[in-house]
Amino acid sequence: MSLHHRNAPLPAGTATRRAGILASHFILHDHHHLHHAKAAQSLPSNDNMVHSNACFSFSSPAGEEITFVFDTKEMRSLLDRHNIAERDWLFGLMQGGGEVFNRVEKGGRVYVSPDYNQPMQQQREMTMRRIRWLLDRGVFKGWCMDTGVEADLRNLAMQETLRSYDHSLGIYTAVHFFLWGGAVRGIETTATYDSSTGEFIINTPRESAQKYWIGGAAIYSTHAAVFSQLNIGGINQGVHVFVVQIRDADGNLCPNIRTADCGRKIGLNGVDNGQIWFDNVRIPRENLLNAIADVSPDGQYLSQKDPEQRFAAFLASLTVGRVAIATSAIYSAKMGLTIAIRHALSRRAFSLTPNGPEVLLLDYPSHQRRLFPLLAKTYAMNFAGNDLKMIYAKRKPENYKTLHVVSSTFKAMFTWHNMRTLQECREACGGQGVKVENRIGQMIAEFDVQSTFEGDNNVLMQRVSKEVLAEFLAAKKHNKLLSRLGLEHINEPCPVIPSQLTSAILRSSQFQINAFRLRERDLLNLFAAKVSENQQKGQSKEYAHYQAYQLSKDLGRAFSDRMVLQSAVAVEESISAGSLKNVLGLVRSMYALSCMEEDDAFLRYGYISRQNAGAIREEVEKLCSEMRPHALALVSSFGFPDSFLGPIAFDWIEANSWSSV
Amino acid sequence: MSLHHRNAPLPAGTATRRAGILASHFILHDHHHLHHAKAAQSLPSNDNMVHSNACFSFSSPAGEEITFVFDTKEMRSLLDRHNIAERDWLFGLMQGGGEVFNRVEKGGRVYVSPDYNQPMQQQREMTMRRIRWLLDRGVFKGWCMDTGVEADLRNLAMQETLRSYDHSLGIYTAVHFFLWGGAVRGIETTATYDSSTGEFIINTPRESAQKYWIGGAAIYSTHAAVFSQLNIGGINQGVHVFVVQIRDADGNLCPNIRTADCGRKIGLNGVDNGQIWFDNVRIPRENLLNAIADVSPDGQYLSQKDPEQRFAAFLASLTVGRVAIATSAIYSAKMGLTIAIRHALSRRAFSLTPNGPEVLLLDYPSHQRRLFPLLAKTYAMNFAGNDLKMIYAKRKPENYKTLHVVSSTFKAMFTWHNMRTLQECREACGGQGVKVENRIGQMIAEFDVQSTFEGDNNVLMQRVSKEVLAEFLAAKKHNKLLSRLGLEHINEPCPVIPSQLTSAILRSSQFQINAFRLRERDLLNLFAAKVSENQQKGQSKEYAHYQAYQLSKDLGRAFSDRMVLQSAVAVEESISAGSLKNVLGLVRSMYALSCMEEDDAFLRYGYISRQNAGAIREEVEKLCSEMRPHALALVSSFGFPDSFLGPIAFDWIEANSWSSV
Repeated sequence: MSLHHRNAPLPAGTATRRAGILASHFILHDHHHLHHAKAAQSLPSNDNMVHSNACFSFSSPAGEEITFVFDTKEMRSLLDRHNIAERDWLFGLMQGGGEVFNRVEKGGRVYVSPDYNQPMQQQREMTMRRIRWLLDRGVFKGWCMDTGVEADLRNLAMQETLRSYDHSLGIYTAVHFFLWGGAVRGIETTATYDSSTGEFIINTPRESAQKYWIGGAAIYSTHAAVFSQLNIGGINQGVHVFVVQIRDADGNLCPNIRTADCGRKIGLNGVDNGQIWFDNVRIPRENLLNAIADVSPDGQYLSQKDPEQRFAAFLASLTVGRVAIATSAIYSAKMGLTIAIRHALSRRAFSLTPNGPEVLLLDYPSHQRRLFPLLAKTYAMNFAGNDLKMIYAKRKPENYKTLHVVSSTFKAMFTWHNMRTLQECREACGGQGVKVENRIGQMIAEFDVQSTFEGDNNVLMQRVSKEVLAEFLAAKKHNKLLSRLGLEHINEPCPVIPSQLTSAILRSSQFQINAFRLRERDLLNLFAAKVSENQQKGQSKEYAHYQAYQLSKDLGRAFSDRMVLQSAVAVEESISAGSLKNVLGLVRSMYALSCMEEDDAFLRYGYISRQNAGAIREEVEKLCSEMRPHALALVSSFGFPDSFLGPIAFDWIEANSWSSV
Repeated sequence: MSLHHRNAPLPAGTATRRAGILASHFILHDHHHLHHAKAAQSLPSNDNMVHSNACFSFSSPAGEEITFVFDTKEMRSLLDRHNIAERDWLFGLMQGGGEVFNRVEKGGRVYVSPDYNQPMQQQREMTMRRIRWLLDRGVFKGWCMDTGVEADLRNLAMQETLRSYDHSLGIYTAVHFFLWGGAVRGIETTATYDSSTGEFIINTPRESAQKYWIGGAAIYSTHAAVFSQLNIGGINQGVHVFVVQIRDADGNLCPNIRTADCGRKIGLNGVDNGQIWFDNVRIPRENLLNAIADVSPDGQYLSQKDPEQRFAAFLASLTVGRVAIATSAIYSAKMGLTIAIRHALSRRAFSLTPNGPEVLLLDYPSHQRRLFPLLAKTYAMNFAGNDLKMIYAKRKPENYKTLHVVSSTFKAMFTWHNMRTLQECREACGGQGVKVENRIGQMIAEFDVQSTFEGDNNVLMQRVSKEVLAEFLAAKKHNKLLSRLGLEHINEPCPVIPSQLTSAILRSSQFQINAFRLRERDLLNLFAAKVSENQQKGQSKEYAHYQAYQLSKDLGRAFSDRMVLQSAVAVEESISAGSLKNVLGLVRSMYALSCMEEDDAFLRYGYISRQNAGAIREEVEKLCSEMRPHALALVSSFGFPDSFLGPIAFDWIEANSWSSV
């Protein structure tokens, strides 16, 4: 639930009014800001800011300088893909934001990162100050009203950048501009139309109908977009969205509104999440957001679409939350890896020969093994996230299903990947990883909620498998070929895995794609058989699916991994031969082979032999040592300014020496 | 580094002086407390406090009452095993501690848990207030000076209980009473004896020699136990421990001492960790802790033991930190599971038939699957932790090696298990899991540091495998039988796994032990072969081990799992036939089979066939539904008072209703 009105063809007259509501909601108690916002600052020179990393070089253990064999700027354009100048402009703004962005100097370096030692009350105030500060500088210009592919991509780029500074800042701005919601069919809030006054009556009929976790509800919001069951003359027309004022301009609660503070959380304390109860609150008829359906003054329900179509359109608009979460999770993983890998290039520990020199952490095979598969996955998921963003930006009814399934899959898989990556990076930095100034540990707490908000990951993955199964069964039933969700490969003959896997075979994208497709099609068949078997035992359709949760989980993973691999292969194929392509090949092979090594379904269901599994493990070890020389270049390509990293991303002894503390 | 003087035969005269130093360190600026501590409060009635859970009953989805088929009090005595009355007394003290322990009423219930919304400065002050408050009530009576098995066990029980309230409180008190240290051989601080004045000169010769993460160093400590290289007349006698005063009674830094604050961490903010630099600080000769060696006034080094023996004795005393971390990690996992399982017995979601009733979370097979294997592991590890505590309490030179290896193994495995369990429990509670009042999310942040402090888990596990290998090679070399670390089974013929695994076979402890032993012995052989192969390639011994990190990891896990299973089997065998034994059998089988399902080494190296793997997976599913009726009893047996759980451990709707907020 939040305020939103994107892509809606507004009827004349009400458009201005609604825009006014939006504006008042967004700028809180400070109305003149939106209308008198300063012109955006000019973009700072790119070279000064983002490529400062290029000046930073480590010597290898043997003493020679590391040189990057590929152009990190070119790699970055493959990763960020769009709005790179705007991202750098926003990074620069925040870096130059002084005390508003908590600029700190330590050991001669500048860092910007929130002061997480503040109690939640101050963290919330700081988030609001930051939003106002960025608003004054034009960062949110057009977010509300601009539509189309370019605007969508720009907004997502801004989200990814804001969340690289602080998750609260990203989430607070997102809940204002994107729709957010949970289990939408089960909404219990009611909106009853009263034609005698031309008003809707919004009500919370029971405790379980209260609105929970609403960003801004505890303190700052003046208006809320409320998802309610629309009731007209006793007929339920399903879920619609209504704008309800909850506080006046001075921050006092409106009549018949009760709120409560959700209190301290493990992260995201810059967002004042709250609970709301509505006690028969009356709102004007025009407060219905009427993009999909409207109500006439005399109580006629007007819609061109049937309930399922309305619900589908509604879901499509909800997916932006999942898209932003999925892609931002990858930016978070990139941040964690940048810090941990740079640390491992400065920190030495133990020696391998008596009285020999201490070895750089990143030169330990086990340390490479902890970080490089995660680095490769982050790359591959980044590419896949870019493809998801394009599906979203170019959304139309024909691909709502694809958008829904892919955004659900990636939201779950990418946020799990982010948490796993941050945790591994935190441990790879030892105790330094729990110091808040080094960012990674705090990011774990800030991003943890991602795996359960905007759809619980496990529930999303179960739905994904169910959708894939439904697609498969529908094609079978109508004797048609599969034609969506990348399932077309199932129309082809089953791929065969060679019994002898040489290094060349293991690294060929065709082999990798075949292995992933084999796993997906077989798990789909097993899942279909299991569900059918359960149903034949008399179980309901729902229960038959739940009982097959293990195969459902395996299938969801197989589906996601295959989608991600496709994206990585496509990026690699799009560029011409050279060192960049070669490094992308290493990364793609590391992605594919470490997925195969980790998912025991390959062995369990016999897609590969034990001998194959041994060959794959050996190849992953080889890939670790081949990725080692490119590690710094691979994280430099992420493009984070130095000031967004923690002190241990530079020199761990220097960062903790007497002169720096 | 910290203050410590346990089990040391103190020479007459200096004993009193040293005890005085200890006392002044512990009680800070408030000397009279230790000597005038009030008599311990009488123990509250057990029934009132700990078994209040027994009154708490949930109805099953079908409506009938759940009755416990076994005695939870009896189960608790198997789990806690010692000092149960003292544990309950301490729980009761903290529960009755009013605002010092941040007593909060919500929805008619009382909760005690720190206010983690406070900045670290206030969290630290509260930790000190709590310590003083508990000290006044006799909680720490005898901790410093009492020795022997009973005293050791009591101290560990108090640690487990204190950490159930707050990790900072446990750690702060532990660093005062137990020795803590990291990579001890590499210590760079120097202590040079000056016989002309009868003083040691303590010095930090370079930045990397600074003391880091020292609990109490930033603000509160007056004395520190400093691990330094002892230098007499130019000869290095190795690491010894010295008491150094760092602040006066008013909290002012002493001359030639510099300190810095380690700052905000993701958890443990109630501990003022700091850095210390010593600039040629002079301390009296008597400040050497002389249990193992002493220095005469004229500079004679006096020790009955050779350097390796001294180092071994030193290591043995260090292991208490690992023992306390390992066992407390299990108490943390127990707390997370208690909250998450109780929540899953109150929260309903979705229905499985159209318009059917919503289903309790814990009745979803997938939800059982998330929590029950972790519950079973927590039980088994709890039993194994009890065995470790006995090895520690009865330590003597002959079992230092065992103590060192087992404490290292369990410290790593149990803390990883705790983090995994807390994370799964947090996600299983959805968004409620990130609310600090519900404890689990905050515990993740508080306990995260466990996996890297007091020895990095990965490094510890590598050392464990190395020790196991050394034991194996030594026996081979001298043509002797293996006789330690539970490796005796390798002397026997290799066990055989039946090709057809029935339910009865799968649940027999003999089959489970055989499977674990087979894995361990084979991985040991593979690891030995790999290290030898690496050495034959010309690699140094150290590097040969590092290169075999994958097998080293697999072997470490196999070693630990087998040790834990042995403990679980022993507890089960120790009790007479009946419902308690039956439930323990379910739990033990769940432990063994879920270990087998999770570790792909079983399939990868062919210890079981694909068909076996399918049978194991099915059996785990069956065990989930068989454990379901006992879930509440199993967590009630952990014995946490209601006030230590979060609001969602009761009724999630009630906890968030208007009347409760």
